[in-house]
Amino acid sequence: MEVVKTRYVGFCFGVRRAVELCLKEKASAKGTLYTLGPLIHNEQVVERLKALGIIVEEAAERIEEGTVVLRTHGIRKEEELVLRKKGLRILDATCPLVKRVREHAISLRQEGYKVVIVGREDHPEVKSVLSYLDNDAIVLSQYERIRGRRIGLVAQTTEELGKFANIAKRLIEEGYEVRVFNTVCMVTRLRQREAREISKQVDLVLVLGGKASSNTDKLYNVAKNENPCSYKIETKADIEPEWFKGKRKVGLIAGTSTPGEVVEEVARVVKSL
Amino acid sequence: MEVVKTRYVGFCFGVRRAVELCLKEKASAKGTLYTLGPLIHNEQVVERLKALGIIVEEAAERIEEGTVVLRTHGIRKEEELVLRKKGLRILDATCPLVKRVREHAISLRQEGYKVVIVGREDHPEVKSVLSYLDNDAIVLSQYERIRGRRIGLVAQTTEELGKFANIAKRLIEEGYEVRVFNTVCMVTRLRQREAREISKQVDLVLVLGGKASSNTDKLYNVAKNENPCSYKIETKADIEPEWFKGKRKVGLIAGTSTPGEVVEEVARVVKSL
Repeated sequence: MEVVKTRYVGFCFGVRRAVELCLKEKASAKGTLYTLGPLIHNEQVVERLKALGIIVEEAAERIEEGTVVLRTHGIRKEEELVLRKKGLRILDATCPLVKRVREHAISLRQEGYKVVIVGREDHPEVKSVLSYLDNDAIVLSQYERIRGRRIGLVAQTTEELGKFANIAKRLIEEGYEVRVFNTVCMVTRLRQREAREISKQVDLVLVLGGKASSNTDKLYNVAKNENPCSYKIETKADIEPEWFKGKRKVGLIAGTSTPGEVVEEVARVVKSL
Repeated sequence: MEVVKTRYVGFCFGVRRAVELCLKEKASAKGTLYTLGPLIHNEQVVERLKALGIIVEEAAERIEEGTVVLRTHGIRKEEELVLRKKGLRILDATCPLVKRVREHAISLRQEGYKVVIVGREDHPEVKSVLSYLDNDAIVLSQYERIRGRRIGLVAQTTEELGKFANIAKRLIEEGYEVRVFNTVCMVTRLRQREAREISKQVDLVLVLGGKASSNTDKLYNVAKNENPCSYKIETKADIEPEWFKGKRKVGLIAGTSTPGEVVEEVARVVKSL
């Protein structure tokens, strides 16, 4: 089987930064090391961290000692307050681009804009941003009529750029005063663009990434739109040989929290089919 | 011939306000009454004002006494300064919606945005807005790469809404911070929408308006897009009977500075064909 592999193999900057922060801390730490929620949306990587003795804890209230790493997607303001009150050591692995969404949103709100976040309500990044706005914001996944005239618009970093821009366009057409910070992260944009290109050239697309990974879902949507023969998988174990009957050219695309090794392994398996 | 007539017969609010201001002043004025440039973009109306003794003067420098009416599209800042210096009486007939463009643009510039005006560089409204920004702004009629990261976007009041929103969308996609005031005037939007609807239903479209009228040009573009059999005329004198051969249903659309009588006259002529 011929394989067209993504140029973006390996972690994005925010994920790499978070994983390295964790590993470095673990190597030198005295006390217990926790991550509040899974550090990134990749089960294999999280399992590897667990194997090193790093504990994934879902509730800030249950951590009583040691060091806590804040996950890449950001945590909720209330959780941060609990950790600070307890005087725990905190390492912030929140992706700086996620923090940018939060900062823009906070300043928009302070300047009197009704903040609108384009994204998924149930995504930890959106939950985090919302909490730092005291939940005084609207989350949209498609255009809706909104109360208020002055809209401050930001996007979940992994949002589809076209969707975000279309919602902005519609708000402008409807006559709102709109102030827009395009916070879709550059890597997400480049990967989505590449996913579109690769999907057009091949007979079948494999999109590699964690089940909970939002940016992988978006890549899968982009791929599926161009090529109905698109499959989302986590590891080589998810590959089903019958998908490849009558196919010659396979595209490999990966989310930002998919380790490079996973991509290379899958590539090897597919080539041998 | 069957006629489908625009619901928007007669002057828009800004044009009516300007013409009434002029007539009222003429009825009570002592000295000479000037308009700086043609009051509105309709030659017939301007001729009627001239017949009442109102003088159309193109150069502020040449006016030495009396009262000066500022045209609906706004005048240039330098012209206003000349008039004020001379201590002339000034009546401001600038459309309040045009002033809104100017005010938003000025405050955007003060707040550090690079101001972008979507519109026609040679239109008096755009020239007026530009002058009040000391020409420190960019005029676009289509998307272009721009220096600077923070863009303050406004539209000529008679701009096509779809075009304006598409330029905004493109700027957002390219990653600029964009603050948008949709200053396309509501009447312009409603007339454009109606022009689209009427043009679809008929065999032939007549778009009535002044030769220099920008909003009439836009209506004509909208009509022509839907119906290749579209003609722009100023008065019934421009009608050519052979256009109507084999046609049964005619749409009548009018710009915001076209007097109601002109629409009614044209309707009468077309019905009798």
